[in-house]
Amino acid sequence: MYFHLVGYFNTSAPANQADADIAALIGEANETFLTKGAPAGKGAKILNFRIEDQKIHIEIESDRYVRAHDAILRFKKPLAALLGKKYRIGIRGIEIESFVVKFPSNDPVKSTKIPYVSNIEFDGQEITVEMEINESQIQNRIPDRIITLIEDKIAMQGYGGKEEHWNLLWESEQKQVLCTEDPTAELLKESWIKHGAARGQWIYGPEITRLFRAFESIVVKEVLEFLGYREMIFPKLVPWSVWERSGHAKGVYPEIYYVCPPKTRDPDFWEEVSDYYKVTHEVPLDLIEQKIDKPIGGLCYAQCPPFWHFLQGTTIADDTFPARVFDRSGTSHRYESGGIHGIERVDEFHRIEIVWMGTPEQVVEESERIQERYKYIFEEILELTWRKAWVTPWFMAQEGLTGTAGRKSVGTIDYESFMPYRDGWLEFQNVSVNGDKYPTGFGVKSQSGSELWSGCSGVGLERWASALLAQKGLDPDNWSPAFRRIVGELPRGFKFL
Amino acid sequence: MYFHLVGYFNTSAPANQADADIAALIGEANETFLTKGAPAGKGAKILNFRIEDQKIHIEIESDRYVRAHDAILRFKKPLAALLGKKYRIGIRGIEIESFVVKFPSNDPVKSTKIPYVSNIEFDGQEITVEMEINESQIQNRIPDRIITLIEDKIAMQGYGGKEEHWNLLWESEQKQVLCTEDPTAELLKESWIKHGAARGQWIYGPEITRLFRAFESIVVKEVLEFLGYREMIFPKLVPWSVWERSGHAKGVYPEIYYVCPPKTRDPDFWEEVSDYYKVTHEVPLDLIEQKIDKPIGGLCYAQCPPFWHFLQGTTIADDTFPARVFDRSGTSHRYESGGIHGIERVDEFHRIEIVWMGTPEQVVEESERIQERYKYIFEEILELTWRKAWVTPWFMAQEGLTGTAGRKSVGTIDYESFMPYRDGWLEFQNVSVNGDKYPTGFGVKSQSGSELWSGCSGVGLERWASALLAQKGLDPDNWSPAFRRIVGELPRGFKFL
Repeated sequence: MYFHLVGYFNTSAPANQADADIAALIGEANETFLTKGAPAGKGAKILNFRIEDQKIHIEIESDRYVRAHDAILRFKKPLAALLGKKYRIGIRGIEIESFVVKFPSNDPVKSTKIPYVSNIEFDGQEITVEMEINESQIQNRIPDRIITLIEDKIAMQGYGGKEEHWNLLWESEQKQVLCTEDPTAELLKESWIKHGAARGQWIYGPEITRLFRAFESIVVKEVLEFLGYREMIFPKLVPWSVWERSGHAKGVYPEIYYVCPPKTRDPDFWEEVSDYYKVTHEVPLDLIEQKIDKPIGGLCYAQCPPFWHFLQGTTIADDTFPARVFDRSGTSHRYESGGIHGIERVDEFHRIEIVWMGTPEQVVEESERIQERYKYIFEEILELTWRKAWVTPWFMAQEGLTGTAGRKSVGTIDYESFMPYRDGWLEFQNVSVNGDKYPTGFGVKSQSGSELWSGCSGVGLERWASALLAQKGLDPDNWSPAFRRIVGELPRGFKFL
Repeated sequence: MYFHLVGYFNTSAPANQADADIAALIGEANETFLTKGAPAGKGAKILNFRIEDQKIHIEIESDRYVRAHDAILRFKKPLAALLGKKYRIGIRGIEIESFVVKFPSNDPVKSTKIPYVSNIEFDGQEITVEMEINESQIQNRIPDRIITLIEDKIAMQGYGGKEEHWNLLWESEQKQVLCTEDPTAELLKESWIKHGAARGQWIYGPEITRLFRAFESIVVKEVLEFLGYREMIFPKLVPWSVWERSGHAKGVYPEIYYVCPPKTRDPDFWEEVSDYYKVTHEVPLDLIEQKIDKPIGGLCYAQCPPFWHFLQGTTIADDTFPARVFDRSGTSHRYESGGIHGIERVDEFHRIEIVWMGTPEQVVEESERIQERYKYIFEEILELTWRKAWVTPWFMAQEGLTGTAGRKSVGTIDYESFMPYRDGWLEFQNVSVNGDKYPTGFGVKSQSGSELWSGCSGVGLERWASALLAQKGLDPDNWSPAFRRIVGELPRGFKFL
């Protein structure tokens, strides 16, 4: 990587008389603090300087070890000391005239509007990025973020898109196949479910709701009460500030349902909308669009981020750890791809979200305990054909990243169930160790100051139902005796003519 | 009310030769079908006509009994019969040149943009409304809807705004006051709750979540299982089509959280948003606004409307009735007025919604049974100071209407609890008989064809908690023994330093 920067220091008076001293300082800088910390022969170098009126122009080039924009900041302090003490001249600030970064690459980077980037070119070997920045952007690390962004784009393109990492960890025995039908088609035929009025949304009748509640009671008894979890209620409307801290603001945009409040709740302001509807029986969307605010955030996507606001900026007593909580208080929403996925992939779904935190050791151990409990449920109660795999961590996937977290103990395990009707597998829940991501993102500390990690696991009720019904069908006689006992007698649904 | 209409029939050829026959038909019409059904001396009258090229101009005036725009439609058929048979001339349609309606009123109507209304004036005694309409608007009942709208506005202004009807039905004994503090302040002090990151939103810690679940278990055992209710899962994102059928599209706009989907989930389309955030660490709201669709609806407001889509357009077997279902699967959201309301009035809340339907007798009886069960809970288990009152039905209030439904058995009972800290009352739940509104709105029929009614009752968990904690405080020792037994030992929350 190559950096080239042309800029100048604004001075309170012409600095011509300091010419020789500045030349000497540059000579020294190039030998010392502009290469400090870099391997031998690496670092930044001030190529030349020129004094013109109240400006000291300089040209810097560098590699990645001391970046040119950092070099100009590093040079400011000793220059100010020199000019101030000996010449009574102050530095008023730095202006950047030209800043260019070159990245080796086999491919051009997909062109997009990046803030502060005025031009991107590719010559077959290198990507050249020109930025328009000033001192405050350098101080705010804007050039570094742009560089990381472009490096990520190059890496992602080399990687071949968003393919997930996947590595089998365990596979159950193949249980007897008792059904080869698509469970959604069966559910519709029996009126256990109906399409909701919105995209990817279902309305669940009494029979399948009983199934959902049976799953919930299993998770509560066999996982949550067994391991000592306490129920909380997490918010379901998620404002930007939460997604900024959770990392979702980096990449979740294509899949969220955005939420906009009215500009005001003054009925007079809305009267023309009501009047329009009452007269035409059509909702005036163009008019409404003018009367609502920009989105304040979106509907619950991942379920745990808004919980962390409860702990944001706090220090927690050590004897609280490992802390164990869960939430089952509402819906999650994702703008999924269209087409026919039935209840296997929906825009509105129901999930029990389990969160734990403590020392790294506690968090990893808890993940193992939870995995044991799940194994017990899937083997001894539901008798499913299932497997688990080490995959791209969910928090990376949701930020648009691929690969793994790079630490052996941090990452996501996906649980998959066999779907006989399509001879494939369905991801139906996960268990993740998220490292220090959330405690750090939300500024949560432990009393002892020791490192704080967290983990989470999402149990999707639609997915559990899909897994069970795809393997066993809707007839309770084909369900395991243990599960049938928990479900009890199915309630009678509506009888349609 | 006075109507005046000037318009013409387009004819396939000049109708001058039919002049005498038309005059005779008008004379007959004014005596017969333009006054049919109206009290003596009332109805519509065609004042004159004039044939010009291929147009037959007419002028009509009327009162409210046969409205002038209906009169011109009524006149079309016999005119067409006359011209067609005897003169082989066809009628090509009706055009309206001028249409004016006058309403007696003491006040001007609040001016607003009403579709098809070109002018509204007030002379101190009458409101004069000019409309620009054509034949298809008359057929679609647009003028009638405008007239109803303006009559409602006049009535509402006379009524003095949106005051609710309120009529005490029953009041409990005053129980011992054990707390005079604001429960929200106490909950915050004890870290049982914290503000969520969004407006009017709370995050509920383990202690109060246990309280919510205790309320839920009471409702499940003492109301829902006792009376034979079956749980369902109602959708929580509500598209316009549901609110059109439920009536909410008439007036709920000031208080809903609107939901907008992305225009596409193509990651390339969203890349500049992600890039902008990654570089600046600011979410680019202006850019996002361009990349999302108009609102498709909003977040759950009233909880039962999206359930009705399950039954929409169906005929239900008679032995299903009375049908009893409930939902507790997620959050409701209202854009409430700002200021300090604590957990008593929130933008995001949790409610058990109970719905029943059947014959009018069944629905009214069920309402009484439910009221008995609630009384048992509030008297024998929670030991609250409470009362109930007959109020403006919720479905009318949410359409912006006041008063009562006008039928003795149709309407809403609000439950209110005494709040010692502010010496006032808090509405904490309701029971409603909604008449045939929902079965009719969603096209649901019974097998026998007999009238179908429905009722609903919403149990707000935040409101129940506010009621209990305001009267008894946070110390379980002050709660009734029966309730303490149901709650069990409170779980330990987080310990913050």
